[in-house]
Amino acid sequence: MSYTEISGGVTAAQGFLAGSVYCGIKASNANRPDIALIYSPQPTVVAGTFTTNKVKAAPVRVSMAHLRGNDVRAIVANAGNANACTGVAGIETAKRMAAATAKALKLRPRQVMVCSTGRIGVPLPIGKMVTAIAKLPEAVKNNGSRRAAEAIMTSDTFAKEIAVEFELDGKPVRIGGIAKGAGMIDPNMATMLCFISTDAAIEKKQLQEALSASVEQSFNRITVDGDMSTNDTVIILANGTAGNKSLRQGAAGMKLFQRALDHVTRNLARMIVEDGEGVTKFVEVHVNGAANLADARKAAEAVANSTLTKCAWFGGDPNWGRIMDALGYCDAKMREENVDIFYDGLIAVKGGMASKTPFSKLKKIVAQKKLTITIDLHVGSADYTVFTTDLSTDYVKLNMGE
Amino acid sequence: MSYTEISGGVTAAQGFLAGSVYCGIKASNANRPDIALIYSPQPTVVAGTFTTNKVKAAPVRVSMAHLRGNDVRAIVANAGNANACTGVAGIETAKRMAAATAKALKLRPRQVMVCSTGRIGVPLPIGKMVTAIAKLPEAVKNNGSRRAAEAIMTSDTFAKEIAVEFELDGKPVRIGGIAKGAGMIDPNMATMLCFISTDAAIEKKQLQEALSASVEQSFNRITVDGDMSTNDTVIILANGTAGNKSLRQGAAGMKLFQRALDHVTRNLARMIVEDGEGVTKFVEVHVNGAANLADARKAAEAVANSTLTKCAWFGGDPNWGRIMDALGYCDAKMREENVDIFYDGLIAVKGGMASKTPFSKLKKIVAQKKLTITIDLHVGSADYTVFTTDLSTDYVKLNMGE
Repeated sequence: MSYTEISGGVTAAQGFLAGSVYCGIKASNANRPDIALIYSPQPTVVAGTFTTNKVKAAPVRVSMAHLRGNDVRAIVANAGNANACTGVAGIETAKRMAAATAKALKLRPRQVMVCSTGRIGVPLPIGKMVTAIAKLPEAVKNNGSRRAAEAIMTSDTFAKEIAVEFELDGKPVRIGGIAKGAGMIDPNMATMLCFISTDAAIEKKQLQEALSASVEQSFNRITVDGDMSTNDTVIILANGTAGNKSLRQGAAGMKLFQRALDHVTRNLARMIVEDGEGVTKFVEVHVNGAANLADARKAAEAVANSTLTKCAWFGGDPNWGRIMDALGYCDAKMREENVDIFYDGLIAVKGGMASKTPFSKLKKIVAQKKLTITIDLHVGSADYTVFTTDLSTDYVKLNMGE
Repeated sequence: MSYTEISGGVTAAQGFLAGSVYCGIKASNANRPDIALIYSPQPTVVAGTFTTNKVKAAPVRVSMAHLRGNDVRAIVANAGNANACTGVAGIETAKRMAAATAKALKLRPRQVMVCSTGRIGVPLPIGKMVTAIAKLPEAVKNNGSRRAAEAIMTSDTFAKEIAVEFELDGKPVRIGGIAKGAGMIDPNMATMLCFISTDAAIEKKQLQEALSASVEQSFNRITVDGDMSTNDTVIILANGTAGNKSLRQGAAGMKLFQRALDHVTRNLARMIVEDGEGVTKFVEVHVNGAANLADARKAAEAVANSTLTKCAWFGGDPNWGRIMDALGYCDAKMREENVDIFYDGLIAVKGGMASKTPFSKLKKIVAQKKLTITIDLHVGSADYTVFTTDLSTDYVKLNMGE
């Protein structure tokens, strides 16, 4: 039993509507829709994961409170302004976003999740947002996923959507989602939003466990140091309209549900990396043979996060010395003499020294748009993988001003 | 009682000779001297600090062993090749460098410290180096500091020298040094070499304590995360020819000696930062009011090491939101509502939110070549300062290939 990819994104699942309106939150985004809505007329169960940053944007605080409710029906999200570092007034503004959405859809405010992305420290233009939000109910459609995905884009260059279909108890079930990313070189700084819907019937506790596990295998792998921006949010809504027997702990269908959900989150995470600001290369860093999982993670993230390593990749220079250096300072247990490093499976470093592989062959691999670096520390059996990018002159240009 | 700056660098102190020869270790450095020697005909006491990276270059391992000896007379250093990740053969090569220098100067090999800087993972051309080293005794002079400083430059754009003079027991005493740096955006990756000489008489234990304390206040403040490259080395030689009463623990002159030494190391550290690859701005990040020293350091380094913060500085964008974000993910105890941030003393963030300072005034400050960012966490009384730089397009260009 497996799943297949289908079109439709966050509206692939039955009973979900999505769409967007133009508000003009950021003056420079003239005419581009900048408020998105995802709406379920039916009751749902909801799960979510939020940034671990101690500086949490107002909408994150409000949504975390609303997550504890039992019947979320809508997610409203704006681009162009993060509503972060905006104090008590920012919290009030986020609540007004929820209240305006609730009013338009005849819901209670606690049935609405709110999200924002954009610049930190600037008050939201809530007056005109309330006016724009009032038009959202007529903007949502059962094929409106793309419009919602486009409305949450900031420096993203393409809309990110995916959906899958599979069977539970002989009934077709769908999981689909949209996401936004960008700002990837130090991925923890990217504001990442992801909204997922499913028509599966599932218990709330199971849904949260499945989402948390899935985020750990996807978005957290592109989040170096496990650090996150002020606004990062992943929300999943399940409305049960597929008619399967509600998934509980240990249910036969849970494995398939998890795999299908993981496919959705992993692919959205990969799209985010590939669309990172100024990215020219996509690099997978695998660490094997670490003493324990924490060490494997430290080593992978040190390599993935080294500005010198990233600059070398941008220039097509294998420069494994910079990888050795990062492994040496990252605080994971290692012995120089034990380290092997492979570029796309070709050995570059054997026992901490240059292998006999010609430098020209390694250069060819690093010249590619996509490469895999595998590091074996040979001190234990733990492994970890992170997805990262190079560091380009365009990245600097894109991030040097507003 | 104080000290005054004098000329002469590492040969300012009586009885020290320095110079360089051309070897051609790195083909692209044609005709530029690339092996330096510092030589004391008189007996010395020696102290040193070395990289904490688990991947230590061969010369570091050899010099650490020689440091335990009691009569080092020479420091030999090459640029163009780091002799790192070169295995057992690399150790033999570093020993041959020491042996060749010892032979030329009629010393024992253990009386020679060896240092290398340059690319990792490439064997040293030891054959021609031995030939070149044989010419070093005739190349050293009592005013040869500049030549030695120039010979250890890699991507450095200027030679780094400083010296000071002061009195102990009515006798003039000098401390002087040379250094090389570069590769500064992620400063832990820069190979930093620093050689200091003094004609003070001082006990070995006191010399080591003074050097360690001085390095902590200087080079370690530009070494984000306390991580270091494979080759980082600081060595001080004291030959006692000034004729002061030998400095012991608690000696009256120790405070002045420490202050003078700190002046030397801090100024060399600042030159290293200012000469960082592609650097356009020099930024001091002060964190005050942290719960403890470790937290103050984490916060200062998170801000100083954030690629997005550095890109914003390069572009002249104050963007304090990125600073707040870094403070939030850095694992130091903090509450968003308590944070104040100042740019050159002008308040930008008050209680975690935008202050009333006009954005245009902050922009003027960030447009400068040098600025100070002061962060008050208001949770305790610990503080820490780091010296850092912006992240420029030129930095990426300089680091994207060999």
